[in-house]
Amino acid sequence: MTGKIESIVVVGSVALDSVKTPEGETHEALGGSAVYFSLAARHFTRVRVVGVVGEDFPAQHRETLASRGIDLSGLQTVPGRTFRWVGKFGRNLNAAKTLSTQLNVFETFRPKLTEAQKDCQAVFLANIDPDLQADVLRQMRRPRLVACDTMDFWITSKRQALKDLLKRVDIFFVNEGEALKLTRQANNVRAARKLAEWGPSVVVVKKGEHGALLLAGGRIFPFPAFPLDQVKDPTGAGDTFAGAFLGSFLAAETDLNNIHALKHSVVCGTVMASFNVSDFSTRVLENVDLAAVRQRVREFADLLSCGNGAAAPPAKT
Amino acid sequence: MTGKIESIVVVGSVALDSVKTPEGETHEALGGSAVYFSLAARHFTRVRVVGVVGEDFPAQHRETLASRGIDLSGLQTVPGRTFRWVGKFGRNLNAAKTLSTQLNVFETFRPKLTEAQKDCQAVFLANIDPDLQADVLRQMRRPRLVACDTMDFWITSKRQALKDLLKRVDIFFVNEGEALKLTRQANNVRAARKLAEWGPSVVVVKKGEHGALLLAGGRIFPFPAFPLDQVKDPTGAGDTFAGAFLGSFLAAETDLNNIHALKHSVVCGTVMASFNVSDFSTRVLENVDLAAVRQRVREFADLLSCGNGAAAPPAKT
Repeated sequence: MTGKIESIVVVGSVALDSVKTPEGETHEALGGSAVYFSLAARHFTRVRVVGVVGEDFPAQHRETLASRGIDLSGLQTVPGRTFRWVGKFGRNLNAAKTLSTQLNVFETFRPKLTEAQKDCQAVFLANIDPDLQADVLRQMRRPRLVACDTMDFWITSKRQALKDLLKRVDIFFVNEGEALKLTRQANNVRAARKLAEWGPSVVVVKKGEHGALLLAGGRIFPFPAFPLDQVKDPTGAGDTFAGAFLGSFLAAETDLNNIHALKHSVVCGTVMASFNVSDFSTRVLENVDLAAVRQRVREFADLLSCGNGAAAPPAKT
Repeated sequence: MTGKIESIVVVGSVALDSVKTPEGETHEALGGSAVYFSLAARHFTRVRVVGVVGEDFPAQHRETLASRGIDLSGLQTVPGRTFRWVGKFGRNLNAAKTLSTQLNVFETFRPKLTEAQKDCQAVFLANIDPDLQADVLRQMRRPRLVACDTMDFWITSKRQALKDLLKRVDIFFVNEGEALKLTRQANNVRAARKLAEWGPSVVVVKKGEHGALLLAGGRIFPFPAFPLDQVKDPTGAGDTFAGAFLGSFLAAETDLNNIHALKHSVVCGTVMASFNVSDFSTRVLENVDLAAVRQRVREFADLLSCGNGAAAPPAKT
């Protein structure tokens, strides 16, 4: 990439989530992949949302996003009800159990980019139908940074469309279980390498509370999660991670060959996700300020620091 | 600690393991906690084994250990059969399924330290009966570094004895699931803190392929595992980790307030474990040389390096 990329388009869900975890529950709270992504990325870059809500979408949620600088001009409001997700997390906070998915207006959603969005040079295609993800990409005039996510459902139902899409993707964010399933591998390092063969030069395998693997420059970099003594609600952690990752990467004004910048983006994503899961819905993401994020980024880098390896173990004498 | 500690006593099992994994199997191969520990620690310090085998223990295994500088003067040979373990790992390589445990001579094992062992200043009490672990500790004249491990069985059957033992332990190595069970917590950070309240100033929560948490100086340091594209046999990974951790820590001639040294010990443990799991039984541990270990330690430190946090993310302009 040359020249600064000033904004990023995100296409994904804007939802009302009802979530139950061992720490409590929410009822029709603000959620959706595009929402988590936007709230995380907004600290670093201009975010332009492409999505759809029903006429019942609360004005206060729109205000929550708009007042934080998120461009909602591509968020359509159409007759009908907003997408709703009902889910539950047990003691194993890594895996959500979906109790109900009501697509509502999302069922017939066909993303249509505004002129400003078509000219945007970066895009995050959240976990929607791969055909829609490709459709968004076709509408963009000169995308220079293309990132995407996916989910179990599309791996099962549209594997080939997803593989075709990946040819045009630079950065692929994917859960560990989904990476194994998509590549039909039993090992996450092999899965990441296989995914890179399919297109993306950067692959991020997300492992929830166990951290992430970054494949970049053909190497695999392992990262732990930020240690937390309480996780209240893991909903949206992956999209939050992607938002802070891509936002901080764009702000660094560099390119995909810069391993240091990519590693730093993993740290930013990890830290932002750690804030997100510490309370329900978007409560923390709405209010956390960049100074607190930067502080925890420094803390996390310090926790990870092991010196430069010069202090290799001495042999016995 | 002041002054160099020249050697470490390890008390644990010396076994013949039959293990099946998706990558293959072994039949009555060299194994046991004291064996894995010794082979890992030998690069850094003198290791003195306290254990028992039956008359059927192959002379070649004894030779394998002795020829690598491991002191077997405390390895008793008694009438009867050597301890045997039969286990299986499925696709989830984090959890072994025990198919058969034949304690044999281990059933009546009462550790009896030699004079040289009694004077030793460091000890690793591998996952045997907490009462026996305490008995070993009582025999030692001036232990300055006491480390131990445990296992599910003792948490269930001898929880109080284990808690009592921990009062006298400096470094506690424990699997994640066992840490949660022992402390009755749902979160591994809380579990580590609870364990530290019970005695050990350093707690290492082992997470298998997901790395480890180090509690030291009241802080929690998360570590990923070394990324591997193939794991053939996870047997002994935890004891290997502990062996390289403690060996490298003793070689550093420092004390438990040295966080940097402790973090470096986690790296050494992680790296040695990564070698161990790449083939069956003790095949790799028997032959890996310190130069290869050092090389991977440097590689791992480089993978983990995220700068000093000075490059915190810029805000959008």
